[in-house]
Amino acid sequence: MTADFPMAASSAYGYPLLIRQLFESARANASPNEIVHQGRRLRYAEFFDRVVRLARALADLGVRRGDVVAVMDWDSHRYLEAFFAVPMMGAVLQTVNVRLSPEQIAYTLNDAEAGVLLIHDDFIPILDAIQGRLRTVRHRLSLTDQPDGGRPGAAAEYEALLSRTEPDFEFPELDEQARATTFYTTGTTGQPKGVYFSHRQLVLHTLSTAAALGGPLTQGRLHREDVYMPMTPMFHVHAWGFPYVATLLGLRQIYPGRYQPDVLLRLIRDERVTFSHSVPTILHMLLGHADAADTDFSALKMIIGGSAMPQGLARTALDRGIDVFTGYGMSETCPILTLAQMRDPAADAGARLRDRTRTGYAIPLVMLRVVDDEMRDVAHDGRSVGEVVVRAPWLTQGYLRNPDASEALWRGGWLHTGDIGTLDARGMLTVTDRLKDVIKTGGEWVSSLALEDAVSRHPAVSEVAVVGMPDARWGERPLVLVVLRPGQDADAAQIRAQVQAEVDAGRLSRYAVPEQVRFVDSLPRTSVGKLNKRAMRESLSAEN
Amino acid sequence: MTADFPMAASSAYGYPLLIRQLFESARANASPNEIVHQGRRLRYAEFFDRVVRLARALADLGVRRGDVVAVMDWDSHRYLEAFFAVPMMGAVLQTVNVRLSPEQIAYTLNDAEAGVLLIHDDFIPILDAIQGRLRTVRHRLSLTDQPDGGRPGAAAEYEALLSRTEPDFEFPELDEQARATTFYTTGTTGQPKGVYFSHRQLVLHTLSTAAALGGPLTQGRLHREDVYMPMTPMFHVHAWGFPYVATLLGLRQIYPGRYQPDVLLRLIRDERVTFSHSVPTILHMLLGHADAADTDFSALKMIIGGSAMPQGLARTALDRGIDVFTGYGMSETCPILTLAQMRDPAADAGARLRDRTRTGYAIPLVMLRVVDDEMRDVAHDGRSVGEVVVRAPWLTQGYLRNPDASEALWRGGWLHTGDIGTLDARGMLTVTDRLKDVIKTGGEWVSSLALEDAVSRHPAVSEVAVVGMPDARWGERPLVLVVLRPGQDADAAQIRAQVQAEVDAGRLSRYAVPEQVRFVDSLPRTSVGKLNKRAMRESLSAEN
Repeated sequence: MTADFPMAASSAYGYPLLIRQLFESARANASPNEIVHQGRRLRYAEFFDRVVRLARALADLGVRRGDVVAVMDWDSHRYLEAFFAVPMMGAVLQTVNVRLSPEQIAYTLNDAEAGVLLIHDDFIPILDAIQGRLRTVRHRLSLTDQPDGGRPGAAAEYEALLSRTEPDFEFPELDEQARATTFYTTGTTGQPKGVYFSHRQLVLHTLSTAAALGGPLTQGRLHREDVYMPMTPMFHVHAWGFPYVATLLGLRQIYPGRYQPDVLLRLIRDERVTFSHSVPTILHMLLGHADAADTDFSALKMIIGGSAMPQGLARTALDRGIDVFTGYGMSETCPILTLAQMRDPAADAGARLRDRTRTGYAIPLVMLRVVDDEMRDVAHDGRSVGEVVVRAPWLTQGYLRNPDASEALWRGGWLHTGDIGTLDARGMLTVTDRLKDVIKTGGEWVSSLALEDAVSRHPAVSEVAVVGMPDARWGERPLVLVVLRPGQDADAAQIRAQVQAEVDAGRLSRYAVPEQVRFVDSLPRTSVGKLNKRAMRESLSAEN
Repeated sequence: MTADFPMAASSAYGYPLLIRQLFESARANASPNEIVHQGRRLRYAEFFDRVVRLARALADLGVRRGDVVAVMDWDSHRYLEAFFAVPMMGAVLQTVNVRLSPEQIAYTLNDAEAGVLLIHDDFIPILDAIQGRLRTVRHRLSLTDQPDGGRPGAAAEYEALLSRTEPDFEFPELDEQARATTFYTTGTTGQPKGVYFSHRQLVLHTLSTAAALGGPLTQGRLHREDVYMPMTPMFHVHAWGFPYVATLLGLRQIYPGRYQPDVLLRLIRDERVTFSHSVPTILHMLLGHADAADTDFSALKMIIGGSAMPQGLARTALDRGIDVFTGYGMSETCPILTLAQMRDPAADAGARLRDRTRTGYAIPLVMLRVVDDEMRDVAHDGRSVGEVVVRAPWLTQGYLRNPDASEALWRGGWLHTGDIGTLDARGMLTVTDRLKDVIKTGGEWVSSLALEDAVSRHPAVSEVAVVGMPDARWGERPLVLVVLRPGQDADAAQIRAQVQAEVDAGRLSRYAVPEQVRFVDSLPRTSVGKLNKRAMRESLSAEN
């Protein structure tokens, strides 16, 4: 016993932070709400019971501590059950990105050493294609939304298995540092890289997110009466961690299956969804859908992340009544780092709109820095640019089996986001670019995102992407790809004039005015719906 | 590297949970608000600067890791500065209960081995009385609210010291299990017992409290626009932890100095206080004060704890517009375990009022059980009674230098609250009595609190206390002490009739009807303002 570490009672409970405690806290508070998927409505009490049955069923299949249980499903109550049952029994949940190529999926299942695979009917063709290459999967559980239990076959069916299993599993005490989840990042180069999160990390991420979203008086808040529906998939960074937050708070939860705009719009309407999160592409798709006209969005709050939200899109969403604001994070960060909640009620509408599309304020316990190449902090003046590096209690401690990438990620003891941005005196972070998407031209760093934002404000522009193309004289030059709104028109001169106006107003470098503007029908995207600039650059280079 | 514990990058930051991170989170978010004490208004930026100066000043005095820095002050900005600076530098903050006797204060300073004492002018007479008995205090810092810096003397004065100290202290990395705070419980028997809390415990208590108070749609919530003022003292279980929550959220904070009803009412009015916490006695005192008539309470939310809130008092407060509800905890629990936030908007007014005076729902990560003598859970039916035992990540792991009491506190791996209560199917806890205040009569357990509550509903009754007196035939019998409202009258028969009505309605055992009712001018209280039933029993026994 020393002065600062007194002796604990031998019987004192040290309380490791475990996902089980989020579950037990939710259970103790006996929410009267439902969890809804495909017309099925589970009371929370039923959900808790099913989580215990799932753990028993997996244990009966031989799943032990440290074993990896992989899931390939659309967003469903089953996925939510696995979010809890698998880590709570001491196993590791692998959320498989079903939009990867079959080869990449096989790679991630093998790399993670998944022993059991829960797989929805829709992905059986993928499984058939890679079956022979899976080295570790011993058992398969079939998931289906068919009323008859889906295709019969060798695999046990999830619902049938749960119904014949007793809810008698005793969840063990675990080390809070034990791995709870793993999944693979979808970079545009190389093999996917595995990240991993512990029980402690997920509990802290949940608490801090709940605290951050509980803070605002009105704008950008989450409360117990909200109805939650994810619109970033559960396989993608735990659906941003919100299923854990929603369950802890006992919210009514809607799981929309495969994302289809008409279904999402119908659920927003019929289930009165009030809280969601998504990427700009999906928001854009929803607002542009024919059914949007009949949908009342005025109760909806929506966090937008994955890539920057253009101001034009934010304004359209606000005009429809959506409380839309940015959230920031990435696969490596669990993910939430910042939320662009409004802090300046006195600011004018334009400033408030811009703030919604900035990157946000650090949520509790997140330490943000913007640093130069030597890890020195740049001024917090809203203009000085550097790389965003972070610390938080929920960041992946490395990449699985990839020590070089792990050390690069954490060089200097801070996680390097690869994003370029500014901090202002309020603590508001604005990410302007990916480090690799900055266009270095004539000695200036031109932000491709700022340039996209300028172009997006032209009334005829539906979507825009800017890439840097090699240039013998200037190093790089921006090239602008534009998708026009149906029935609207614009030419390259008009687009250039739009950018020139921003230059004249002092908001963009004069090096930003593009010589090249191309009009295209659509923009290439990655498996998670982000603009795929690598594909654009490659295809444009191939032209030349 | 095993499957469940992958190898972290050598440079990955493990992120211990430290009070410094609450401070840095608050600093990064640059609150525009002020911290107010005695007319002095500190901007947050100034407060942050002063915390760093205080740490430097204490380090210059020789304070090192593990050293204990004791504070004897009324609620002030200085106290808040010590809440952060002392633990952040790796020292231990001892919050001294200034209402203890000088002998007890000397005991606690010696037992804690306090090396430095920050002491307000008002407590110099206490210090003079015990000076010769203090074995460990080497340095004294004088705190004053006098504009001239207070009495001159050997001790350095806090403000003068801060003004000549540079804000250049570098807060060290610490083990999250390092002790951050310590203080002594004020039991009615034996010497005070020291409890202690680590950085990790205080961070988790702060996050979970913020998450719990952010959850409700309206009733019982805390948000960033609230104005916070403590009305349970900072020396008492960290003012329930709210100074940490308020600072993390960047709230406007008001520190009221010594609690004087007219000053508290003036601050509620003039500083537009919207969030506070107190004990029933102080709430009762405020509502009964002459200045209450001129005070608008309609924006005030108030958590009531320390002892049960009578329904009569709750109704009076509600009628004045105060959103009043119960919080539950104790010195050993950091303190918050439950909050009686309303969950049933459809319930009738009477049921809602009763719920506000119940003990509450567990906040996130708190595990509550109500158990019998063999640690078996009783039914969650709202009627079955047992002892409340708890687990949470913020409970003292024992008493300082008191292994027997520590083991008794934690027997069976659950912290024993010594409270008797029930859990209902909603998860609502209702504490009915202290284990030692149950009146065991004729084979029945009569709740002294329920009996007090019944008597309190008589219109002439201002305050009431029930104690169990030894009885040869029945084991014990209840004795009722009543303070009447000024100008009102009642006799023992009326009080008995009031109780009999509750018996007739099936809400109290027939053994509860008291033979003895005494009318008194006031009720004896402990140093923290709770009813002192031990003193009542002793004084009544002495009569016989």
